[in-house]
Amino acid sequence: MNQTRAESRPGEVRIDQPPARDAQLRFIGRIRTPWTTREQCPKSSREAIERGDGAISTIEIDDLYVEGLKDLSNFSHVWALYWMGEAARDLVVQVPKLLGEPRGVFALRSPARPNPIAMAAAELIAIEGRTLTVLGVDCLDGTPLIDIKPYFASTDAIAHASAARRSVRQD
Amino acid sequence: MNQTRAESRPGEVRIDQPPARDAQLRFIGRIRTPWTTREQCPKSSREAIERGDGAISTIEIDDLYVEGLKDLSNFSHVWALYWMGEAARDLVVQVPKLLGEPRGVFALRSPARPNPIAMAAAELIAIEGRTLTVLGVDCLDGTPLIDIKPYFASTDAIAHASAARRSVRQD
Repeated sequence: MNQTRAESRPGEVRIDQPPARDAQLRFIGRIRTPWTTREQCPKSSREAIERGDGAISTIEIDDLYVEGLKDLSNFSHVWALYWMGEAARDLVVQVPKLLGEPRGVFALRSPARPNPIAMAAAELIAIEGRTLTVLGVDCLDGTPLIDIKPYFASTDAIAHASAARRSVRQD
Repeated sequence: MNQTRAESRPGEVRIDQPPARDAQLRFIGRIRTPWTTREQCPKSSREAIERGDGAISTIEIDDLYVEGLKDLSNFSHVWALYWMGEAARDLVVQVPKLLGEPRGVFALRSPARPNPIAMAAAELIAIEGRTLTVLGVDCLDGTPLIDIKPYFASTDAIAHASAARRSVRQD
């Protein structure tokens, strides 16, 4: 389950934030997945896909925006950006259950973050009217959509990117 | 220059949208780049990096969020998400100048989109206090930051993703 204001784990740091009013979003659709509780959501949909048991999801764009899908079928993969509105936004240091130790929010892909925008690269299987069928989105059913972008391997695919590289200077 | 409400090219489609009030964002920092006009911004910073003349930018996180940078130096690359607030939000079909023909907004990485959130994968060069030094962000100087996420090659790097693949069904 996402953490809410009510709970906190030892080592976590919460901050007091000003009201969120620097910019406003419109929800432009909904993501339909097989998962209705946080516990059901896969931790890594990419691993599931590689195992061959990735789940098919659909993205339903609101009628107002359907013309924006023109030419999207040219692309094999898309980014879905979506809003994890139930997550805590004030937790700058978090203790993920699987990790068991404190980590800065910007070093995590946790939905709990100052602006709870998640993103997933998904394979585009079909487009029918206002509905995209995709492989690789692992959010809860009904999650609000905020953007679809084409995936560009030339700028987005950095195969040599690594975690736990200690050579970055941090003072 | 970004397109504003005042201008439109033949073939473009604008929509009337409800007020943007489904969700609210806080700006959490600023991106500092060498570019102060849209014309100066590189069209593809990745190509510039591959040519060896990519520009170094800095990302300044607000003091309030600096604890969230803990452990980020473990990663070689990060995603920067930022707000392109001057772009038109109602242009669902656009005619990019270089393309010369209409294309749906979700098939473009244009800053003009219903929710003008841009994202860039950047190499992390150094972290000093609240300042990240990065290679690969190509926005205007002073652009508001909305998120930093670690880049995970396992989920984000899809080297075989392609454009102009016509096999996706679009009905």
